[in-house]
Amino acid sequence: MAYNFEFYAPTKVLFGRGMEEETGRQAKAFGASRVLVVYGGGSARRSGLLEKVESALEAEGIASWELGGVVPNPRLDKVYEGIALGKEHQVDFLLAVGGGSAIDTAKAIAYGLGEPDRDVWELFQHTRKPQNCLPVAAVLTIAAAGSETSKSCVITNEKTGEKRSCGSSLARPRFAVMDPEYTKTLPDYQTGSGCVDIMMHTMERYFTNGGNMEITDALAEGLLRTVMENAVKLHRQPDDYDARAEVMWAGSLAHNDLTGCGNDGGDFMTHKLEHELGGMFDVTHGAGLAAIWPSWARQVQNDCLPRFVRFARKVMGITAAVPDEEVAELGIQAMEDFCRSIGMPVNLEELGVRPTDRQIEEMAESCLAACGSSTGSAKKLTKEDMIRIYTNARAAR
Amino acid sequence: MAYNFEFYAPTKVLFGRGMEEETGRQAKAFGASRVLVVYGGGSARRSGLLEKVESALEAEGIASWELGGVVPNPRLDKVYEGIALGKEHQVDFLLAVGGGSAIDTAKAIAYGLGEPDRDVWELFQHTRKPQNCLPVAAVLTIAAAGSETSKSCVITNEKTGEKRSCGSSLARPRFAVMDPEYTKTLPDYQTGSGCVDIMMHTMERYFTNGGNMEITDALAEGLLRTVMENAVKLHRQPDDYDARAEVMWAGSLAHNDLTGCGNDGGDFMTHKLEHELGGMFDVTHGAGLAAIWPSWARQVQNDCLPRFVRFARKVMGITAAVPDEEVAELGIQAMEDFCRSIGMPVNLEELGVRPTDRQIEEMAESCLAACGSSTGSAKKLTKEDMIRIYTNARAAR
Repeated sequence: MAYNFEFYAPTKVLFGRGMEEETGRQAKAFGASRVLVVYGGGSARRSGLLEKVESALEAEGIASWELGGVVPNPRLDKVYEGIALGKEHQVDFLLAVGGGSAIDTAKAIAYGLGEPDRDVWELFQHTRKPQNCLPVAAVLTIAAAGSETSKSCVITNEKTGEKRSCGSSLARPRFAVMDPEYTKTLPDYQTGSGCVDIMMHTMERYFTNGGNMEITDALAEGLLRTVMENAVKLHRQPDDYDARAEVMWAGSLAHNDLTGCGNDGGDFMTHKLEHELGGMFDVTHGAGLAAIWPSWARQVQNDCLPRFVRFARKVMGITAAVPDEEVAELGIQAMEDFCRSIGMPVNLEELGVRPTDRQIEEMAESCLAACGSSTGSAKKLTKEDMIRIYTNARAAR
Repeated sequence: MAYNFEFYAPTKVLFGRGMEEETGRQAKAFGASRVLVVYGGGSARRSGLLEKVESALEAEGIASWELGGVVPNPRLDKVYEGIALGKEHQVDFLLAVGGGSAIDTAKAIAYGLGEPDRDVWELFQHTRKPQNCLPVAAVLTIAAAGSETSKSCVITNEKTGEKRSCGSSLARPRFAVMDPEYTKTLPDYQTGSGCVDIMMHTMERYFTNGGNMEITDALAEGLLRTVMENAVKLHRQPDDYDARAEVMWAGSLAHNDLTGCGNDGGDFMTHKLEHELGGMFDVTHGAGLAAIWPSWARQVQNDCLPRFVRFARKVMGITAAVPDEEVAELGIQAMEDFCRSIGMPVNLEELGVRPTDRQIEEMAESCLAACGSSTGSAKKLTKEDMIRIYTNARAAR
């Protein structure tokens, strides 16, 4: 069935080899004159990308300042630092060079500069809604978060350990430069984590109890199969340009809302459960998702059986003529096999995290507080469900 | 393999029951203050949609004028009439209420008003490129052309019989209101033609010799299977809301460029061959495509065999273990069977058109002139190819 929906993904995508040279022209066309360039570690500089991008800006007469040092699970203190720098230099445009962490940091700074008299963290506590935001764009170097075309933004408050999200189309990047060449040198673990993150963005929209459109399912299933196939290729041959391109484009489509059109809003509990892990243990996001999903899936599958059967049949290719519950379990096992085949964990032990019972209870409480009434579609999770999911995720069954 | 590409589909989609009530608010948000409402026959008025839309504009303090009487294969004289009316009332926004004909007419008027001192037909003769265009939006009542999110615009010069297209992102609608309810009363022939048109927009991008991305193929194949399944449902049960919704959303995705990302630009010769038919005989566009495609396919299949085999296997579900040429032919036959099953013609006789040899030669010459050097990707067609395609399309083999 088809729910009413709004679909608005206005980001202009410039995809392929050498496209970073377009950065200056595009920034100018979208009104930039004073740009804060946000990036992470040294790889953006070592690869020469940062210099290329800044030259492209300069060639169009655009002034720029740098904010480096963004870390995975990007932090609120860096956001505040960027807001102060942006105020000092009166920047009017944010350009992220990197992956989801750099882009989300740029988005949060853009929110902060859009409403300079308010504390930006309030947006992540959901005590108010964003009214204004500076324009943002991205030069992507990691296929994973989908933040280059999504409305999503996730920031960790390092003081409280809270990892929280704020979603609004105000922060959707104006344009995104995507050159797969720059992703060829990513370590295998990062590539695998990215592929899992991409799949999860679509799977969060897929596992619903309210019904999905057929066309949306067909797109989602095609996307998931393509990512799996190319993730395996990249585990063997990390510099395969075409496989990098497939995964990079899939990453944008998985999270620009295309794979959720007409559904009931999606589930998103694997992400929310992982946010607590990420806030407490600073794990790699995609790997954290891989480690939590099987336990989540087994906790909810009986409440959402038709979707788990469909997933097993259409995505995982399960053909066994067995009862639905077994088909669903075979689909979950196939997902675990896939994750292991690309070096991803399927439980917390393999992730390298050993939460105590007390820590699990804390994470469940914090997750429940962050969710409000939105505790899932496949199954609305209780605190007890969450505790069981974390506990069963500890080690292989 | 993955070619470089730009993807820019910024149209804001408002999809579902009652969404037409958003028209005024959206028009205002996109800067409209004086709107020309472009529509076709009486159905937009009889259904009450036109009144709802105009009330929604009025409620936001937006003035509007009407231009009705747009016909299928929309004509240049109506475009000139709209440009004159737009100048008279100093309109700053075009709103189409209808299907592809109304939307394309609105786009052409918007081009004309954007450069008021130039003849708009020059854009369709490709003697100059558009530099400016008024903003356009659409309230869609027919799922077919995809014009509600595409950059495409096709107009017929009724004096010369030329049906020509102009593509530019300047004319992409700012927003599109899509309420499947209004498509429930479409006659069966129009519904079937629309479904074929939707499929063809994706198939034109699918049959290439230069290679396609896997993710794009997967999305295209999922879309094609979904449209076929729901076209058959609608042939039996025209007021099935969910099937209408599937087809309507597929219509936008089939032609907003999503199903062509990373390919070599696509083929598009079935459309160009049909444009000549449409210009000479005023046939229903989708039915014209259905009547031409099998003959085109058999003319080019040996030059593009891997794609025809893939189409047969992945879209048409052909499982026979026979040589590739036979698999390709079985796929083409399956497409013919599908078209017949929804009341669509698969040759010119069934379309009700009997061109003479002289007329076929004229169409081939005109098509070649309109194509310039772009005569296909599956096979670059010669004039002789075109004559053979029209000739073989005359009747069932």
